[in-house]
Amino acid sequence: MSQYGSAVEYALHCLLFLTDGGGDGAPVRSTRDIAEFQKLSADYVAKLFTRLEKAGLVISSEGLRGGFTLARPADDITVLNVIDAVEGRKPLFECREVRANCVLFGETPPTWSGRGVCGIHAVMLRAEEAMRTSLAQSTLAQLATHVAGVVPPAQKKAAQHWFQDRSANRGRRVKG
Amino acid sequence: MSQYGSAVEYALHCLLFLTDGGGDGAPVRSTRDIAEFQKLSADYVAKLFTRLEKAGLVISSEGLRGGFTLARPADDITVLNVIDAVEGRKPLFECREVRANCVLFGETPPTWSGRGVCGIHAVMLRAEEAMRTSLAQSTLAQLATHVAGVVPPAQKKAAQHWFQDRSANRGRRVKG
Repeated sequence: MSQYGSAVEYALHCLLFLTDGGGDGAPVRSTRDIAEFQKLSADYVAKLFTRLEKAGLVISSEGLRGGFTLARPADDITVLNVIDAVEGRKPLFECREVRANCVLFGETPPTWSGRGVCGIHAVMLRAEEAMRTSLAQSTLAQLATHVAGVVPPAQKKAAQHWFQDRSANRGRRVKG
Repeated sequence: MSQYGSAVEYALHCLLFLTDGGGDGAPVRSTRDIAEFQKLSADYVAKLFTRLEKAGLVISSEGLRGGFTLARPADDITVLNVIDAVEGRKPLFECREVRANCVLFGETPPTWSGRGVCGIHAVMLRAEEAMRTSLAQSTLAQLATHVAGVVPPAQKKAAQHWFQDRSANRGRRVKG
């Protein structure tokens, strides 16, 4: 299994819908709409947003037009922030302290065998730090700019309208 | 689950027994002895060495005193080499191409939606590259030096004698 999988990918994709992609300010979106737009399970997206809210990346508002919005500017939300929010602080390497296993040690390994950080673990921690530094250099705003360069204007407008329609019709749908 | 686990840790620990830790040149060790010394399963260690040999990091010799030895100097074997040997080239992130899922697309996503590398995937590939660069900077020789600084001289001697005894007595044990 890879270190990072679908939860990270979905969370980042979902957050892109809260960026100012259409020039209409920071939008407020319901997790149900975000899920449906991407053909994802509404429950799954709701769970992702619970974690993102807990990490302080999004804030929720209640009411008919309520939903989630970014808690701070998109250029102040890094990919690492999102990863840590949805995956927790997941280590790259789990050290099993193999160094304590030796046929010469008997029942209790000597103190020196566990002193300091295991040399292998130290190498892995350095690699993890390099990875995290790189992930902290990319922001949600940069991803949004990338997406804006790929998605044709017609699709941008269509997406914006879709979300606006959903929001506008919410009251009507509830009433019947 | 972490990206790297016990296989990497065990492989590196095992390879340390093939470095010139005791000043007795590049030792030839049997996987059975390396396993027993660390209280590991002999089958498991044998499997690790099959992968390490396939990757060109160790070479085997046959016969009563046969076993494995490093295929090249320890300062020319990086932690990344060992990881790739035992884990394969494992990506940090598996992209599910979520970008192709959109309620507006209908049956077939438009060509532009899959053009180039997904922006999120690109960020992950950069982080993976940073991690791999870091792992490629640490060598087995450096780990051996670290271990030599931790292990007391008496333990080094005891370990060396243990392996020498095992090798010397191999013929005798087989005969009776």
